[in-house]
Parts: sequence; C-alpha cells; structure tokens
Amino acid sequence: MPNLPAPVTPPDRILMGPGPSDIAPRVLAAMAAPTVGHLDPYFLQVMNETQQMLRQVFRTENQLTMSVSGTGSAGMEACVVNLVEPGDRVVVCINGVFGGRMADVAARCGAEVTTIERPFGEVFTPEEVADVCKRVSPKVLGIVHAETSTGALQPLEDISRIVHDAGALLLVDCVTSLGGCPIEIDKWEIDAAYSGTQKCLSCPPGLAPVTFSERAVAAIDERTTKVASWYLDITMVRNYWSDSSRAYHHTAPINMNYGLHEALRIVLEEGLDARHARHRRNHLALRAGLEAMGVEYAVAEEQRLPMLNAVRIPEGVDDKAVRSQLLSDYGIEIGGGLGPLAGKTWRIGLMGEASTPRNVLLFLAALDACLKAQGHETSPGAGVAAANANYQIV
Amino acid sequence: MPNLPAPVTPPDRILMGPGPSDIAPRVLAAMAAPTVGHLDPYFLQVMNETQQMLRQVFRTENQLTMSVSGTGSAGMEACVVNLVEPGDRVVVCINGVFGGRMADVAARCGAEVTTIERPFGEVFTPEEVADVCKRVSPKVLGIVHAETSTGALQPLEDISRIVHDAGALLLVDCVTSLGGCPIEIDKWEIDAAYSGTQKCLSCPPGLAPVTFSERAVAAIDERTTKVASWYLDITMVRNYWSDSSRAYHHTAPINMNYGLHEALRIVLEEGLDARHARHRRNHLALRAGLEAMGVEYAVAEEQRLPMLNAVRIPEGVDDKAVRSQLLSDYGIEIGGGLGPLAGKTWRIGLMGEASTPRNVLLFLAALDACLKAQGHETSPGAGVAAANANYQIV
Repeated sequence: MPNLPAPVTPPDRILMGPGPSDIAPRVLAAMAAPTVGHLDPYFLQVMNETQQMLRQVFRTENQLTMSVSGTGSAGMEACVVNLVEPGDRVVVCINGVFGGRMADVAARCGAEVTTIERPFGEVFTPEEVADVCKRVSPKVLGIVHAETSTGALQPLEDISRIVHDAGALLLVDCVTSLGGCPIEIDKWEIDAAYSGTQKCLSCPPGLAPVTFSERAVAAIDERTTKVASWYLDITMVRNYWSDSSRAYHHTAPINMNYGLHEALRIVLEEGLDARHARHRRNHLALRAGLEAMGVEYAVAEEQRLPMLNAVRIPEGVDDKAVRSQLLSDYGIEIGGGLGPLAGKTWRIGLMGEASTPRNVLLFLAALDACLKAQGHETSPGAGVAAANANYQIV
Repeated sequence: MPNLPAPVTPPDRILMGPGPSDIAPRVLAAMAAPTVGHLDPYFLQVMNETQQMLRQVFRTENQLTMSVSGTGSAGMEACVVNLVEPGDRVVVCINGVFGGRMADVAARCGAEVTTIERPFGEVFTPEEVADVCKRVSPKVLGIVHAETSTGALQPLEDISRIVHDAGALLLVDCVTSLGGCPIEIDKWEIDAAYSGTQKCLSCPPGLAPVTFSERAVAAIDERTTKVASWYLDITMVRNYWSDSSRAYHHTAPINMNYGLHEALRIVLEEGLDARHARHRRNHLALRAGLEAMGVEYAVAEEQRLPMLNAVRIPEGVDDKAVRSQLLSDYGIEIGGGLGPLAGKTWRIGLMGEASTPRNVLLFLAALDACLKAQGHETSPGAGVAAANANYQIV
C-alpha cells in the first residue's frame, strides 16, 4: 500500500466568517446523493426545479436564471464577459474589494472602464452615480449590493432609476445579500445579478446563481463579437438550461447542483421575509452584545449588513491571535479585514444556517475569553447579557 | 408551506457514458463532510495533500499542479488563457469535438489560431505535426490525448519531441485519459495538461486538475498582458495554492475538493499501473462481447481508448430508442455520438469505478435485449459468452 494521506475528516467548525457559512445537514446529504448523467432526464428535472426556485429567491420572472458552474467570482465574470464587448464603456463603483475585482474583470475583457470610489465601508449616493452616468454614458454600470469586504449595504432603488434613465444596464453583485436581506431583481429593475452559494444560501461553495433581464438578454443577443470566455458564454450555456434545446455545453457539476437544490428548498420553506427577519434579529442581538463589550462597528448604522458585521479590532488587541484562539479553542471561524482594512477589522458572519441565537451567544462568550487573554479590559458577561436582553425586547 | 419540489432522490444509474462515471461511495461520503473555511488550516492541509496526489497521478514533479474550480472545460480554458496572449500563434489539432473547442477558446483570447484536422476517430501522425510546426512556428501546440467525442487515443511521445524541437509548448487535453491509461507528464515532457474529475478519477464533475511545467510557468511569467480571465488567472490562483502565500483569490469549492481528495486516494491505493491494466482488461472483454454480437468499433484497433468504446450503431437500429431502453429498463447510461457522429455511434464508457466485469456483462446482456426489441438479428448470449471467455484467457 503506498503512503497515502488520511481520509478527509474535517474538524467541527462554526462558520462565522465572510463565507462559506454553516451548511445544513440536509444539504450535505444531498451532495452525497448518487451522481447521474448531465443529460439524464432526472437531472434535467433538477435543473428545472432549481431554476424555478432561483427565480423565487431572486424575486424575478427572468427566463435566463441559472447557476454558473463556478464560485461567486465566476458568476461575476460570467455577467461581465457576456454583457461587455471590447471598447464598451463600463462604470464600476468601488467601495471594497469586490468592486475593485469587477473593474479588473471588465478591463480584462476589453471594456473602457471608468471607476468611481468611496472609502471602504461607505456607500454611493444617487448623485454620484448620476454624475458619472452623465459624464461617461456607459453601457453597463456595476455595483456591489453587499460588500463582503467591508460590511456595507448599498441602497439600489434610486440608483437603478438613474442608471436606466442614462440608458445603461445595471449589474449588481449580490453574492452576500441573496437569502439574507431583501434583493428585488424585478421590482428594482436590476438587469444582471450574480450570487454565490456559500453565503446566505448556506450551500457549499462551487456554484454561482445568475439572472439576466430581458434588456440584458437583448444586449447579449446584439453582440457583434464572441464572448471572451468559452466556459462562461451564456449564449451557449443557456441552451443547456433551456427545456427546448438541452444542448451539451460542459458537464454540469451534478452533486453541487443537488446541494443547491436542497439549500433553495430550505430557503423557501422558511420564506424569504422570515429569513430576512431572522438575519436582522440575530444581527441586532450581536450588535447589542458587541456594543456592551465596547467593540465598535466599522460601518455607519444605517448601512450595516445584517449578515456580515465588520467591527474595529480594539486597540492593542492582536488580530491573528484572537482569530486563532477562536478557531482552536472554540472551533469558531471569523474573518479578518481585506485590503486597507487588513489587521484593522474583523468580519463576523451570521449567514444562512449560521444566523442563530446560539451562535450569537457562543461567539460573544468566546470573544470575552479571547479579549481577556489579550489583556483587554472587558466587563465579563456584559456582551452575552446585552444580547440576551435584546432577544427579549424584539 | 409553499409549493416546493421534492428533495433530490436520484434514480439508481450505472454510468457507462462519456462521463460522469460511477462514483465510489467513499467519495460521495467525503463530499458530505462538514464544510470548513477556505483558509482553515485543515483545508490548506487538504489542498497540500491533493497537490501531492495529483502530482503522482499526473506522474510529474511540477510545482504548479492544482485543481481549477470548474469542470474539465474550465481546465482547458485555464491552460489556454494563461499560456496565450493576443497575437500569439497557436496550433490546435482537431480530430473531434474537444480539439474544436480548444481552437475556439484560443481564438477568443486573441490567438492567431492555425488548425490541422483529421476525420473524427483518427489521430495525427508526427509528420503532420512537424509540417504545421515548420509552417507556423507556434508558441503553443494543443492536442487531445483521449478524444471523448470519438474514442481515439493520440500517441504523444514523438509529437512532444517535434513540438519542442520547434520551440513550442505542448498543451495536452487528458480529461478522459487521466487515471484510465498511461499519461506521463514529465517523461513525455508535456508543458501543460488539464483533466476533469468525472471520468477515470470517478469523482463528481466540478473540478479540473491542471499541471504546468517549468517552461510553461516561464512563459506565463513572461507575459506582457494580463490573463484574459480573472477567475482562471493562474498567476493569482497559484498564490492560494502555495504554502508560502495562501493569498485569497476566490473561495474554493471546499466539498468538491474533499471528493477529489478521496477519489485520488482510491486511485493511488489501487496503483496507476494496476488501474490502467484493469481498464484494459475490461475493455478487451467488452470488445470480445461486442464483436461476437456483430457490433463494430468506430476507431481502428491500435487507437482505441480503453475507457471509452465508440461503436457503430448497427444498421436499422434506432439510436435513441436503444439508449432510452437501456436507461429505463436497466438504469444504464451510455452516450450518443457528438458532432458528425451524432446518430451514428454509441459511446460506451468503462471509466474508473465503472470499469468492472459486472458492468461489462450486464451491458452486453442488456444490449442483447435492446437490439432484439429493435428487431435486430443477434445470436442471444453470444456477447456475454465471448466476454466471459475473454476474462478467462487474460
């Protein structure tokens, strides 16, 4: 017998970082269902059902709604490469890592990219968007709904009107928001949106739900050049996701799609409104606890994400030491800061299955211990007490 | 409770098509292990071990060996977009669907593509490759080792020498060959190769193992333009797969990587030589059975793939009716022809876990029944008898 590594036996984690989030046992069980062929009538039924459920979760009637066979960033690239041809003017609003990524992706497929920027943790005003639309007259304006890198929520309704008045298409990153707070594709007239499975949908990473409006589909149909990526070319992929054609494009990740199917069933069983309320309730309890412990948010109150709490690391506290202790002593994963926020913030996720009172209380109790280990002044138990009190109020 | 589809409960299939192939229960169980974070020390260990095992399966020392977060076609695109800059001369050898796809991918990232062609089911001679290398002097020559669309195996050793003598890089598609027949990355001096998980590795689709030689890495390092795809940009992805950096790029498909880890353990437990011999033994038994039934191969004997048997559909037999009956009455999936072979050939896979005497005998017995239902003259039991006899001989 050759010298082989041991079988996979992951440690028991509570995933309270920026994603992946905790996965429901039902979803993990679905991932392990026997693989069938990618053209098997049964798998085509799974695809149809998944499309229907994705439409409900995106709150859209868009025909072109499906999962891209890659993680959230592949969803971003799929939206950009399909909407953009070389020389097209694209505006990207950057207030975090993922806006910056979108600008990079757009430039790589030959767009003339104009960026507007806000400091990490802030959001854009409708006026700023109106200004750049007037100045650039873009084909597409891309913006991030929930910036996973900063914890800020971007209001979209006014911006959507402005973008459409300027004759542009609105592309929205809802990787972190979908399933955790309201995102209304049809009501807000979003033309293209992508998400990931591993945030508030609580499915393992590996697929990217996307949806395109009729306007977006028309823009794709009017292309005069081939889509820069073969793998992500929606003009071909959509034939596989279409009842009338089912033309082979690439072999779909069968078991990942099983997992997404079950994750969507769980989301819709709970109901979107109830799910959003749950995320908000646990966010408010966590906030009460953190504030009682003197830990401050890095984002203004009215723009905070309910599913991702970006807080300032208290003065004198070692970022990595605390995250290591949370992981080793309590099996709790939280995220560090990204970009200019590295070493300055923690990102505490309460996403999907992980958004529970149990996790809120445990995290606050564990943070107490970790801050104490750092010699940081706390009033022991104050966080837990405040969170518990907050649950009583609401 | 909203009106939801039923949970995923796939039918019991035997996957004898062009992939996905049957998955070992151990691999399905690994897919359902609890998800951890993509920067969790445990997951980094899984990545390290996976890299080590991939090197053994590819038979290479290449440092840059990893899994791309997409299916086999994403692996193709990852190799092409990283090696090719706009204006680069690329030769693609087309003798099936996947060669054609590679040419399409190369053209989309701005290559000056020259193609040479052979009819579907045939392979290229060293002379043909020498001619085109002399004529074009390409930066990269791409060729398919095992054409899944036709069932033909391309010898590579002579071609490799010719390509290198011409100063070009050799890019090889080994999606279907890896784990099923010899593919020697280092010995044959292949510069870049990609595979898929769902063929002879018998892991569900969703990842693409890739490997790059030092020459290929040097070519990537000398690029003057950004890689056309952000998602597949190896210059960034490799920092995540590197012990010294682990820089976040995109969130890896954690559970898919668990599955690949276990699938590679199974491959190496069996041993590559033994695994190749098993594929060959079952191929020869199937061949004996098919020949006894008067079913002819579509590929010349010396070029047949052991893991994918492309045979001519007997005159007067309805392609789809037979494949439907195999699926509905026996739960057996086989593949139809692709491209010009659609309606003319069947593709019978004996890949990975599915390459067993049990499947060979069952398939021949079931085919007997399906051909009889088509009114096709057979001598009942002749196929099974010949296959059994063949197992006795070998």
